[in-house]
Amino acid sequence: MTDHERRLLERRMNSLAPMYRLFYETPVSFVRGEGVFLFDREDNAYLDAYNNVPIVGHANAAVADAVACQMRTLNTHTRYLEELTVDYAEELLARFPAPLHRVAFACSGSEAVDLATRIARYETGAQGVIVTQHAYHGTTTATAAISPSLGRNNVLPATTALVRAPDMLRDDPSTAAAQFAERVTLAIAKFREDGISLAGMIVDTSLSSDGLQLEPVGFLREAADIVRAHGGVFIADEVQAGFGRLGSWWGFERHGLEPDMVVLGKPMANGFPVSGVVGTDRVMRRFGQDVRYFNTFAGAEVGMSAARAVLARVSGGLVDHAAQVGTLLRDALTDASAGNSAVAQVRGEGLYAGVEFVHPDGLLTPDPAFASRVTNGLRARRVLTSVSGQFENVLKVRPPLVFGPEHVAILRDAYRGALEEAVEASSS
Amino acid sequence: MTDHERRLLERRMNSLAPMYRLFYETPVSFVRGEGVFLFDREDNAYLDAYNNVPIVGHANAAVADAVACQMRTLNTHTRYLEELTVDYAEELLARFPAPLHRVAFACSGSEAVDLATRIARYETGAQGVIVTQHAYHGTTTATAAISPSLGRNNVLPATTALVRAPDMLRDDPSTAAAQFAERVTLAIAKFREDGISLAGMIVDTSLSSDGLQLEPVGFLREAADIVRAHGGVFIADEVQAGFGRLGSWWGFERHGLEPDMVVLGKPMANGFPVSGVVGTDRVMRRFGQDVRYFNTFAGAEVGMSAARAVLARVSGGLVDHAAQVGTLLRDALTDASAGNSAVAQVRGEGLYAGVEFVHPDGLLTPDPAFASRVTNGLRARRVLTSVSGQFENVLKVRPPLVFGPEHVAILRDAYRGALEEAVEASSS
Repeated sequence: MTDHERRLLERRMNSLAPMYRLFYETPVSFVRGEGVFLFDREDNAYLDAYNNVPIVGHANAAVADAVACQMRTLNTHTRYLEELTVDYAEELLARFPAPLHRVAFACSGSEAVDLATRIARYETGAQGVIVTQHAYHGTTTATAAISPSLGRNNVLPATTALVRAPDMLRDDPSTAAAQFAERVTLAIAKFREDGISLAGMIVDTSLSSDGLQLEPVGFLREAADIVRAHGGVFIADEVQAGFGRLGSWWGFERHGLEPDMVVLGKPMANGFPVSGVVGTDRVMRRFGQDVRYFNTFAGAEVGMSAARAVLARVSGGLVDHAAQVGTLLRDALTDASAGNSAVAQVRGEGLYAGVEFVHPDGLLTPDPAFASRVTNGLRARRVLTSVSGQFENVLKVRPPLVFGPEHVAILRDAYRGALEEAVEASSS
Repeated sequence: MTDHERRLLERRMNSLAPMYRLFYETPVSFVRGEGVFLFDREDNAYLDAYNNVPIVGHANAAVADAVACQMRTLNTHTRYLEELTVDYAEELLARFPAPLHRVAFACSGSEAVDLATRIARYETGAQGVIVTQHAYHGTTTATAAISPSLGRNNVLPATTALVRAPDMLRDDPSTAAAQFAERVTLAIAKFREDGISLAGMIVDTSLSSDGLQLEPVGFLREAADIVRAHGGVFIADEVQAGFGRLGSWWGFERHGLEPDMVVLGKPMANGFPVSGVVGTDRVMRRFGQDVRYFNTFAGAEVGMSAARAVLARVSGGLVDHAAQVGTLLRDALTDASAGNSAVAQVRGEGLYAGVEFVHPDGLLTPDPAFASRVTNGLRARRVLTSVSGQFENVLKVRPPLVFGPEHVAILRDAYRGALEEAVEASSS
């Protein structure tokens, strides 16, 4: 760290609330961004292989221009008849299966998950919500209550049921889907024993916090069917997977299912705070009739103009691009991992890849220290990543979708170096 | 409505979720804004006497330029060492009493209230929260649960206690503060009977939803003292009153109290989704140590640049301006109301004025129909207002803070016309 950064860190610790955390052993600080790069004060370029928010690239000109123009024109709220809000709503809904033809806007993924679960609970008159064992769904009171990944001090209520996600490394792929469905059935039975009715289930369709568990393809469909058979609402949390991340528009498509509600967030407006809940008329109608919903900033024209610019860019071939470059990305990670006994699995889909690290004990014991060394080693090589998974042993590679083959090459070389260094540190 | 607006309304009803509501018998639709005016497609100017978000004016150039410039430069998140976030945090905290020297950012007022109550509950290990009888604090599950103004279908839990706000029209001002304190004491006793521990109390310091109850000045101080004496946390919700609205920086100042936490929202970045919780180190420390907090969009550079531009403008004399023009505003409303028996009281502070309408029965019976006629009459005269209060009988005048004497004159004339028309309609 430079002197400037040390002073900045001290100032930060004296002004921000104590619940903030920084990435990396040596934190990073940037002054500008461009495409898939971030630059520090000395104009060193860092390859961004982590951030899923600036989906169309840092400082994207089309989004910046749309926002700049709209800021100088109009920004009101949904109690007036806003044309841009309706324009964007229609364009967005055109990307969904026909039954999902209503949208409500919010500012953050947390707010959108919170609203979706609020609607589900109102519609069902029930409180029980099923999530995966290491899920993250948000930071409001109600969404933290369904986010076991926030740790043991974030005590979950009895109305939250946890089901272990499939484990692509350790489960038998031929039975993993049926076993996941069985766990959902058991969770519902346990709710019943405890006198808790089922409101529904919400799942991040990339199972990002559970360590990026994408297969067996279709395992979420059976779970959704069971939830609905028991009167619950199935909510797809697409904050991570949505808008092309996995090389398809939505993560739920991969599983061949149609959710009752879909939650959208992070990349929706490339960093402008916009999120949303898309749902069927059936599931939203009663809440809509009985309870009004107004979110001051959400659906206002400036955010909508940013979201439209993003939607236009993603529609312009970025989903296929993510699929294609994603294949190169996994190949490169696999190639650079060859012969390394700490690497248990390279997995992923589209531009979301995970590398799971284990101890070389033959027992697939998770090795979070190794993952941390690789992540910090990549940071030292000016490549940004992070870790994921219940044991924090999965390297998380999730770049802006404008990531190209040339960026995969930079990542591969840095990863190879970080991996070697981590192996040396482990054996010393 | 024009044909275009009718088609737009139909499209809106076919795409937005069914919980959205529009203002006015005849909805309005705008294509641009400038200062305190909004313009429709025919370029008719509407005087904005309602919107508290665009505090420094619609389409403010300084805010638009700050956002445009920052969008083209950098927008990341708080897990990197962001300089702008720290810069703004310091500038903001300088506006608070010394003990309030920590800030956490969020995107909306709802998120900020949700976080503040989450912290209060974690710190106290208790669940009970006291609010005023017609309070509005947000739209997340936890904030809707402390928002009785959302109506009877928004069922409140046993952990929410309601205390009637002072009533500036009906209470005896010499005893209203003591009676309010007594109601707070009773609410705590009732919690104890029900086996619910006290987490704290949150109050909008303008008591906006309770009909703008600003006096007797100081009534909140005694309530806060009682809450703290019983181990609770006192939270000032400054989403309405903050940033100069009442002719002082913060609404809690008027009451001579120092809250444990302060919630900021709406005008904070003139419409860019930025909110925050300012608090003492004492109340935030344990939550900070035990629970991490990350809000993807909140504290990112673009929002901070907007918030800085707003803070600079408000610091440039806008608070005193609000106090001065506010006096003219109340005088104008009082003058135009003279001799009208439906007008029971003109009240307010700074640029937030309320006019309470009652039936001329000598019993001060609220007349929401009259208030609705005045509001719709003002809308017909191209002046934007709304209604407030438990009985929806209080005209709410809460313009952008750049409202000047010339705008007061426009409002006064339109109000006089709307009032006459409402009287005629009432007597016919």
